[in-house]
Amino acid sequence: MSMNSFGHLFRFSTWGESHGEAIGVTIDGCPPNIKISKEEIQIFMDKRKPGQSKYTTQRKEPDKVEILSGIFKGKTTGTPIQIIIKNLDQRSKDYSEIANSFRPGHADITYYKKYGIRDYRGGGRASARETASRVAAGAVARLTLKNIAPKLEILGYLVQIGEHKINRKNFNEIEILKNPFWSPDKSSISKWATYLEKIRKNGNSVGAIIEVIAKNVPPGLGAPIYNKLDSQIASAMMSINAVKAVEIGNGMMAASLSGKENADEIRSDKNNKPIFLSNNSGGILGGISTGQDIITRFAVKPTSSIATTKDSIDENGNEIKVMTKGRHDPCVGIRAVPVGEAMLACVLLDQFLINRGQIG
Amino acid sequence: MSMNSFGHLFRFSTWGESHGEAIGVTIDGCPPNIKISKEEIQIFMDKRKPGQSKYTTQRKEPDKVEILSGIFKGKTTGTPIQIIIKNLDQRSKDYSEIANSFRPGHADITYYKKYGIRDYRGGGRASARETASRVAAGAVARLTLKNIAPKLEILGYLVQIGEHKINRKNFNEIEILKNPFWSPDKSSISKWATYLEKIRKNGNSVGAIIEVIAKNVPPGLGAPIYNKLDSQIASAMMSINAVKAVEIGNGMMAASLSGKENADEIRSDKNNKPIFLSNNSGGILGGISTGQDIITRFAVKPTSSIATTKDSIDENGNEIKVMTKGRHDPCVGIRAVPVGEAMLACVLLDQFLINRGQIG
Amino acid sequence: MSMNSFGHLFRFSTWGESHGEAIGVTIDGCPPNIKISKEEIQIFMDKRKPGQSKYTTQRKEPDKVEILSGIFKGKTTGTPIQIIIKNLDQRSKDYSEIANSFRPGHADITYYKKYGIRDYRGGGRASARETASRVAAGAVARLTLKNIAPKLEILGYLVQIGEHKINRKNFNEIEILKNPFWSPDKSSISKWATYLEKIRKNGNSVGAIIEVIAKNVPPGLGAPIYNKLDSQIASAMMSINAVKAVEIGNGMMAASLSGKENADEIRSDKNNKPIFLSNNSGGILGGISTGQDIITRFAVKPTSSIATTKDSIDENGNEIKVMTKGRHDPCVGIRAVPVGEAMLACVLLDQFLINRGQIG
Amino acid sequence: MSMNSFGHLFRFSTWGESHGEAIGVTIDGCPPNIKISKEEIQIFMDKRKPGQSKYTTQRKEPDKVEILSGIFKGKTTGTPIQIIIKNLDQRSKDYSEIANSFRPGHADITYYKKYGIRDYRGGGRASARETASRVAAGAVARLTLKNIAPKLEILGYLVQIGEHKINRKNFNEIEILKNPFWSPDKSSISKWATYLEKIRKNGNSVGAIIEVIAKNVPPGLGAPIYNKLDSQIASAMMSINAVKAVEIGNGMMAASLSGKENADEIRSDKNNKPIFLSNNSGGILGGISTGQDIITRFAVKPTSSIATTKDSIDENGNEIKVMTKGRHDPCVGIRAVPVGEAMLACVLLDQFLINRGQIG
Repeated sequence: MSMNSFGHLFRFSTWGESHGEAIGVTIDGCPPNIKISKEEIQIFMDKRKPGQSKYTTQRKEPDKVEILSGIFKGKTTGTPIQIIIKNLDQRSKDYSEIANSFRPGHADITYYKKYGIRDYRGGGRASARETASRVAAGAVARLTLKNIAPKLEILGYLVQIGEHKINRKNFNEIEILKNPFWSPDKSSISKWATYLEKIRKNGNSVGAIIEVIAKNVPPGLGAPIYNKLDSQIASAMMSINAVKAVEIGNGMMAASLSGKENADEIRSDKNNKPIFLSNNSGGILGGISTGQDIITRFAVKPTSSIATTKDSIDENGNEIKVMTKGRHDPCVGIRAVPVGEAMLACVLLDQFLINRGQIG
Repeated sequence: MSMNSFGHLFRFSTWGESHGEAIGVTIDGCPPNIKISKEEIQIFMDKRKPGQSKYTTQRKEPDKVEILSGIFKGKTTGTPIQIIIKNLDQRSKDYSEIANSFRPGHADITYYKKYGIRDYRGGGRASARETASRVAAGAVARLTLKNIAPKLEILGYLVQIGEHKINRKNFNEIEILKNPFWSPDKSSISKWATYLEKIRKNGNSVGAIIEVIAKNVPPGLGAPIYNKLDSQIASAMMSINAVKAVEIGNGMMAASLSGKENADEIRSDKNNKPIFLSNNSGGILGGISTGQDIITRFAVKPTSSIATTKDSIDENGNEIKVMTKGRHDPCVGIRAVPVGEAMLACVLLDQFLINRGQIG
Repeated sequence: MSMNSFGHLFRFSTWGESHGEAIGVTIDGCPPNIKISKEEIQIFMDKRKPGQSKYTTQRKEPDKVEILSGIFKGKTTGTPIQIIIKNLDQRSKDYSEIANSFRPGHADITYYKKYGIRDYRGGGRASARETASRVAAGAVARLTLKNIAPKLEILGYLVQIGEHKINRKNFNEIEILKNPFWSPDKSSISKWATYLEKIRKNGNSVGAIIEVIAKNVPPGLGAPIYNKLDSQIASAMMSINAVKAVEIGNGMMAASLSGKENADEIRSDKNNKPIFLSNNSGGILGGISTGQDIITRFAVKPTSSIATTKDSIDENGNEIKVMTKGRHDPCVGIRAVPVGEAMLACVLLDQFLINRGQIG
Repeated sequence: MSMNSFGHLFRFSTWGESHGEAIGVTIDGCPPNIKISKEEIQIFMDKRKPGQSKYTTQRKEPDKVEILSGIFKGKTTGTPIQIIIKNLDQRSKDYSEIANSFRPGHADITYYKKYGIRDYRGGGRASARETASRVAAGAVARLTLKNIAPKLEILGYLVQIGEHKINRKNFNEIEILKNPFWSPDKSSISKWATYLEKIRKNGNSVGAIIEVIAKNVPPGLGAPIYNKLDSQIASAMMSINAVKAVEIGNGMMAASLSGKENADEIRSDKNNKPIFLSNNSGGILGGISTGQDIITRFAVKPTSSIATTKDSIDENGNEIKVMTKGRHDPCVGIRAVPVGEAMLACVLLDQFLINRGQIG
């Protein structure tokens, strides 16, 4: 069972609520003797942390990680790594207004219906704050992958905000880290900025599409039939807050293509290694990696917390009006980029270890 | 670990190859005292079985199930149910042509790269034939759900073949069982028939989109964070052969919407039960069912086996030409409808049992 | 969850009832390219099969295995191996006498209390017949271990029947296969034979203690804290029918020793490899193998089915007298020897794969 | 996979090293709305904590628990409960003497052989300090069981220290909490005290046997074949540091009995409920609880850390002499009593939830 855990041999379990004392993650099964420091983890945390631009929530959380176990003299020991992140900006505010009411699009109502109790402070366990723990786990996964598959690279970016897509012709990896949207298309920046500014002023929000790719993934990762690599990626991405769809390779578009168009033909290079002439499959055939780039995309719905009054009910079923005040991301999809990278890293390391276990 | 298993409390494991002696499924954790007969399972098998129309493969498999364990005097005993399906039409043909070559879009190359060996007869373990075992498991799940959640209904249908979508205005459940495409839109039938006929004659194939819904699902199924109902559904659907994308609720479209448009507002009925004014969420918030219809869609790529020559390589890396002869579905998405229903049934029953375990 | 499954990377699931049509086992995660034939598996089956001497049940079951999947051209393919064993001597007899009554010491009453239904024919799922499936899984594990740890040997034998222990001074491996008791002490044979003959004539039965050792196990198998090698062995052995105790190394006796006596001191050989001067630990420290012999013992209770009248009740709570007629082992512990070997083989292979996964 | 986790629906994962900053436990799957405070957990912690008598280690650890998540307004929310225990008395001492050497009977050598690195400070992850986390998890399990099975009681006590057993005729539950040995036999106290005092002065240690029983366990917990209640208990107890054997009911003694002696005959009470005339089975038949008392025993080896010089080697294979200085339990079995209780509580709650999930 894995209610709050993900993975098999490399397995992480997250805990904590948005406005509790701390959140954190326990990582079990990490290979030993991997050099990992909290400073190296922090680099990944800083990519996700809030308050970095006016396009994300203004909650001020430094998200400083502390490592409580599993690392000795700067190296992993093979035992559980406990990483803790204190909640500093949870504001001991007055929750009376939201304690009893269900915000549309939020998990308030489902947690209450399921458990009969919920930690309503800042969304509790259902808050996107939980994704900070995933990024910490992902950082450990990436630092480990650096040792066991040194050429493997993972790269996430935004390809769509609201109805505005990037122009694939302008795709340039170097741009991604240079703008607050993780956009690979320089021409999109000012358009998106103007668009989001308007959205925010209107007390509104928008969705987004994130693409994450992994390069130099060895062939053979994944396994039939229910531990397929794509099935694990789908599960990983859909577990991220607000995600409503996951694609592999050409995704939904595959439905519209013919078999002739969709076939990724194969040639050989001079070393007799396969060269695929296209990558509609997204690097996965029969649930197992081909050696091509792994390509996945996921859609994030617009932030449900908006500064606009909506119809809802309270715990007793009374009809009420709800408006979310306070600090919220106009497009929560932006901060989902490092989260998607983290999840893909965790899936790939886990699959790498499983494959090594079975095949050697 | 679950390489060939799916689920937690209600867990099934499939085994067998396309052209081996038999395929089958072991179901563990089924509640006891459920009335189940092979005749009732057969009804579901017959929906999936090949050769029912000219739009699916002409392989003749009666797909008769035999129950070898776990059912006594017509009722489940709580112990493992073994269901076996003999392969009758596997044709002891000459495999020399395909034994050594990789068909584009198939798992031939990845199985070989991973395992160093593969059962090349008819696609072996990677064949869509495996989905017959899922349908058997799904039948057991549905017959069980009938006892413990009698109003729950699961319904799958095709909403797109190639570029041709149904017209949602014509949606009529009654039509679904009346045509070979599981289409809910009567007006689509002749169009799709003409289109597919042409595709087939051209030695080509097309993809499709399947929608599966579940009605009268109790609120509270699913759990944070990694056993979310939507995460489990994504994993389930993506594990089906040829699936490249999974959506929940409005899916990819959520990216294009604003928060104002996307919010599913809530009112109360006279019994103080929540009434949602829309269902963009697809019946799931924070990974937990709301009580609304569960809505999922998945895209199936065009059948990779086409009667058209394509570039590929063989096991030794030699460049070759490949054309798939024989009996293949011009649109394998059609037969994926009952498979999608089966997977959703298994997820829902599993989540029902887990929820009952934790909550009571 | 693992109600009817055992293991993690090398995982087997058994199914079937004593007097059903067949029993069997699905093996998932077996490494590929291992040469395995049904003839090789049969050798292990034949060690366990009933009716081989007058000291075991006279039920005539050839226990012929059929392999339905996962092996192609004589080699494992890495996909699930389905092994089926037909029940031939289940005798379509009249069950009316036992259908409604609970035999003391049997699972009749607990299955009924739990499930509200039970397959009463020959003990159904609770019958020791299930252990045939384990022996098949163990055979696959041992044939695989032969490839990946060629020097590793597993050896089981009886060290006690009733109150009669072997004399450890007479221990001689060569004797084990020469007598119907798997005894390593030649002097015990005639004593045990006389003793058991008397037990049987009295309509009685006795318990036994089995010891299983593994030689040349590499150090490093197992993992803290809940996947400890000894914890997994304990779970494996206690899952065998009628087992009431499991020991590792000096076992219960460890309680009576002082720290000075119990310490396994260590010296170095000329290659600087550790030499332990004793093996009280049974080859496991902190849950991880030391490289010494793994030593485990388990106690099997006397067969509950005896030809002597005992007080019991029926399903309605009526007080009745019960006597078990028919063919039963006077000492079921004898046939537990190959079962214990099989379980140890499965644990060791699983731990080997897990260790290889994490450590490389 | 569960390297550092235990359980299925009620699942806990422990983390932390003996001389690290803190240790802790994450509990996943706890039912919601259970009243739990840190003060109530502390009561159980205090039973295990060191330094309470001269018969246990003099390390001073208050073992104060902090709850970081999963409890809101004094009640469980159904989300992960993180409990942390700071290490206060880990003494930043000089480890140079032990950093490189392997103590006989310790996990030093196996951790090093497996991982190539180990946290040598105070035994690191292999220290019995980890059991504090189990006691915290057990406390949560017991407080939960109080709600869902109010009559269920769990009771552990010592029945043997070294060669000195209690006299079962003097068994009196009331005595258990009155003496530092958790002995139910008043007459044993002074004898054990004198004996242990001598052991300690000699720089020696001894083993012990702990018995743990559970009363008023409902019938039906556990499941065939590999999730048997006794198999789970064996796994749980064997996972405790220094445990070398686990017994259920009459345990090893079952081997010496005849079937006539061992049969637990059954009568009916006036409500037609079964009354067992004996309890050789320890409350478990076919892996499922009968409704009788669950009885388990486990043997703890003598503390390996003794103030006596022993032969050993260092990391480079050099032969050395080792003597463990410092604060150690002369009989670590004493403090294993609350740990055994905790593990049984966790197993029973987990099995209760699984049973409720499958059966309802």
